[in-house]
Amino acid sequence: MSSSPIRVALDAMGSDHGVDVVVAGAAALSREERPVRVLLVGDSARIGAALSRERYDPAWLQIVHAEGHVAQGDKPREALDARTGCSVATAARLVAAGEADALVSAGNTGAVILSAADHFQRLPGIRRAALAAVYPTEQRHGPRGDPFALMLDVGATVQCTAEELVGFAVMGSAYARIISDNERPRVALLSNGTEPTKGTDAIVGAHARLRGLPGVNFHGNVEGLDIPKGTVDVVVCEGFLGNVVLKMLEGITEVVTDLARDAASRKLSWKLGLGILSDGLKQLHAMADWKQYGGAPLLGFDKVVIKAHGRSNARAVRNAIKVAAKAVERDLAGQIQRGLGGPPVV
Amino acid sequence: MSSSPIRVALDAMGSDHGVDVVVAGAAALSREERPVRVLLVGDSARIGAALSRERYDPAWLQIVHAEGHVAQGDKPREALDARTGCSVATAARLVAAGEADALVSAGNTGAVILSAADHFQRLPGIRRAALAAVYPTEQRHGPRGDPFALMLDVGATVQCTAEELVGFAVMGSAYARIISDNERPRVALLSNGTEPTKGTDAIVGAHARLRGLPGVNFHGNVEGLDIPKGTVDVVVCEGFLGNVVLKMLEGITEVVTDLARDAASRKLSWKLGLGILSDGLKQLHAMADWKQYGGAPLLGFDKVVIKAHGRSNARAVRNAIKVAAKAVERDLAGQIQRGLGGPPVV
Repeated sequence: MSSSPIRVALDAMGSDHGVDVVVAGAAALSREERPVRVLLVGDSARIGAALSRERYDPAWLQIVHAEGHVAQGDKPREALDARTGCSVATAARLVAAGEADALVSAGNTGAVILSAADHFQRLPGIRRAALAAVYPTEQRHGPRGDPFALMLDVGATVQCTAEELVGFAVMGSAYARIISDNERPRVALLSNGTEPTKGTDAIVGAHARLRGLPGVNFHGNVEGLDIPKGTVDVVVCEGFLGNVVLKMLEGITEVVTDLARDAASRKLSWKLGLGILSDGLKQLHAMADWKQYGGAPLLGFDKVVIKAHGRSNARAVRNAIKVAAKAVERDLAGQIQRGLGGPPVV
Repeated sequence: MSSSPIRVALDAMGSDHGVDVVVAGAAALSREERPVRVLLVGDSARIGAALSRERYDPAWLQIVHAEGHVAQGDKPREALDARTGCSVATAARLVAAGEADALVSAGNTGAVILSAADHFQRLPGIRRAALAAVYPTEQRHGPRGDPFALMLDVGATVQCTAEELVGFAVMGSAYARIISDNERPRVALLSNGTEPTKGTDAIVGAHARLRGLPGVNFHGNVEGLDIPKGTVDVVVCEGFLGNVVLKMLEGITEVVTDLARDAASRKLSWKLGLGILSDGLKQLHAMADWKQYGGAPLLGFDKVVIKAHGRSNARAVRNAIKVAAKAVERDLAGQIQRGLGGPPVV
């Protein structure tokens, strides 16, 4: 759609697996049919060394040196204040200055959120940013039948007002439209019952407002049962709840994998059974493999921000860059603004 | 321990599967080696008819007629006010009057909670009652290696204060001690991070108070990941969150079952694989089968109340009665009082 190529500022540091996998993801993308211009931001010596071990198209990659980075265990605010020129802050500044169109990082989540808040503008009508995550569901979504739904907020906030939840619904709807080509994504509030009166005051208030908002295809409330089933395309909740739910989904994936491995190691018939099932299990595992989905968008700013999982492999980093480029190309911020149109949200 | 046999008032009405399964559960227990005296409360004609189809020991069963009942879809307060002599209210009155020691019901959850509030006394030092649920975990618990942990509140409350969460921790600890013979059950607050400062104000406040409460073996905060893993024996949270988490666990069990069935119907190798795995799958399924665990205790009153799942089968009803008797025998209310001892909770 846009004539000039999209440029992504990629924080090359701070991933759990180090610089190499991040650089490998960008390198792989540079050799593809529809590459994205990537600024690799971080320790230039380490990025250069990592690049030297990869095959890549130099026309699409550029190293931007930055001094220091925020590690996964660091306290984000303290680290950013102590290392003002660190990789994630430098990448955010490049985007704010118009030298790149989107920020992608597999680093410390808090540092990504704070860097966005420090350097980008919040969209008009949006009170709080939200981190959205895609997660696997039984039901499929959108015209392409994507096997995942979107949930937000999963950690940029703790508790939220009704108005903030309405903003999340609008943003989640816009993002699902872009990412799943889903023109009217079904959006719901996560509550302890489907009735409009169920839940916290914030949920009850948001429910009433969303009923009157034409920009959102509001499905009402959903319950815990509906999360794995995937009854709706976008699940809206406060960050505290989203964090618990998302980590629980990760935990269950790990437990099922552990149980299967453990059982297989003990009993021959299990081993045989799992062998026969292996193709199918791979398929299930792929469905549950967040790494393929390209990271979580931080929604609410005038710039596109994608937080890739700290444990991202090269493929996940590549996907996060592609997702960021798609969000820029399809004008995520504009979509959110249009979703807020109609009756005022406040 | 006690010399006279324990008597349970069993609300025979209002289960999803009708009177028959509830009566069948009581009948089965009456023939066992350590029976419990059960008052079957409800429509005497229907209970009598159901009993006539079962083998049972009449020395242990008695029918108490009650007019009307609260159905699963009814609004609890309205239904109880309209049908003051209904089965669950009558059963609660029998317990309040000392004619039975515990209330068991597979009926409308709200009606069970309200009947308890109407007829029983809240324990000194406990501000709110909580509904606790057992759920399957990867790790085992207590000296018997029980494959389940306890979570509360899962639906008697929506939002809670710090003080109420502390009360839940004490009650959950007492219940785990009784039900799993676990002398020092590990208790934790469910939050969005392990640090004492993480979570809502109520969680941060409860964390600080629990650190100073010797009656509780406080493990700190756990996260969503720890729920399926079973890192602790008792998970404490407000009712809104507990409701979402518990329903999500149920939903995931259903989704996994659906996926396996669906895959098996499509592909021969899957069918073969599942066949070979069937013993193991049965074992996994059993682990995930709440029905075996005998229902959810409603904690915080001077009387023992067990809410069996609405979809309980006869075995689940039998287990709920046994659990109720065990809680009476081991003095649940006294255990909770002892847990509150030490520094005052307020």
